[in-house]
Amino acid sequence: MSPPKVAVVVGSTRQARICPAVATWVAETAGHDSVLRYELLDLADVDLPFLDEPRPPAHGGYVHEHTRRWSVLAGSYDAFAFVLPQYNWGYPAVLKNALDFLYDEWAAKPAGIVTYGNHGGGKAATQLQQVLTGLHMRTAPEPVLLTVLPDAAESGDVAGELLPILAPSAAAVRDLDLALTTLLA
Amino acid sequence: MSPPKVAVVVGSTRQARICPAVATWVAETAGHDSVLRYELLDLADVDLPFLDEPRPPAHGGYVHEHTRRWSVLAGSYDAFAFVLPQYNWGYPAVLKNALDFLYDEWAAKPAGIVTYGNHGGGKAATQLQQVLTGLHMRTAPEPVLLTVLPDAAESGDVAGELLPILAPSAAAVRDLDLALTTLLA
Repeated sequence: MSPPKVAVVVGSTRQARICPAVATWVAETAGHDSVLRYELLDLADVDLPFLDEPRPPAHGGYVHEHTRRWSVLAGSYDAFAFVLPQYNWGYPAVLKNALDFLYDEWAAKPAGIVTYGNHGGGKAATQLQQVLTGLHMRTAPEPVLLTVLPDAAESGDVAGELLPILAPSAAAVRDLDLALTTLLA
Repeated sequence: MSPPKVAVVVGSTRQARICPAVATWVAETAGHDSVLRYELLDLADVDLPFLDEPRPPAHGGYVHEHTRRWSVLAGSYDAFAFVLPQYNWGYPAVLKNALDFLYDEWAAKPAGIVTYGNHGGGKAATQLQQVLTGLHMRTAPEPVLLTVLPDAAESGDVAGELLPILAPSAAAVRDLDLALTTLLA
């Protein structure tokens, strides 16, 4: 049997974003010696417009090709780890939009949250946890909060500068892998 | 002196949306015998892309024409009443995106929240209240929660069917006007 697949969702699409570097580190750290397979899923590649389905997603029957494509992609994963910056004490619009587009694709699937910000992004994590619960996902009990100053994004060598900042949180990401593994068992 | 201007922000841009009808009712109800002037501000007309400024909005120096136009428009109002549906226990992406684009334009301005949903949208109101506080807005103490079933949007005559549903909340909207008036005094 092939291992369950976890999408590590890159939840910011801004220019000069550090989100792909953080998500790559999360995927490698969580996937090390894991029974799960972690893959990056970049919302910049998914490239959705603002929610434009005529009917509520819970009713299904998507009319737009971009929604059907997103439905197939999201539906192909067994679990999700959402990686996102905190903006103004909340979650990024691009991530909420991608979540709001679908419904059945999320239901009952395990989900973890990794936020970053000046103070770890705990407020965004709490808000997103509530949204994922509203979508009937089964969330890992503890979000991973990464204290990353915005100046890290200005650097040319994002990954190199980030690693020493992220390293102390490796154990928390390993706990996230354990939580997702348990939820998938 | 001309009266202070309040933007009644239409916080959903989906097709078949009832948000403009709800916002129109809020503007008329709040504006009746008020010392404030209420005007609709439809995010569908603002038509922003997903946040694409290279620098954090708090640093200013917007590089995109759409951001500068939005900055001038938002900056021309003295206060805001945000009207929004609850999606999956949170706020609509299009509204969070419009908020995240700017920063100084919101600071210290009074803001009220009007949500609607099957159960009034109280979870979205609480999340948005936190975001507005993060943006240093001065929020009215009580959001207005409107219990509006989604089927209302399927009707051809949205305004006609909505009015009896909204009418009992007129006093709450009048209280919102009083709160904004006090905050602007």
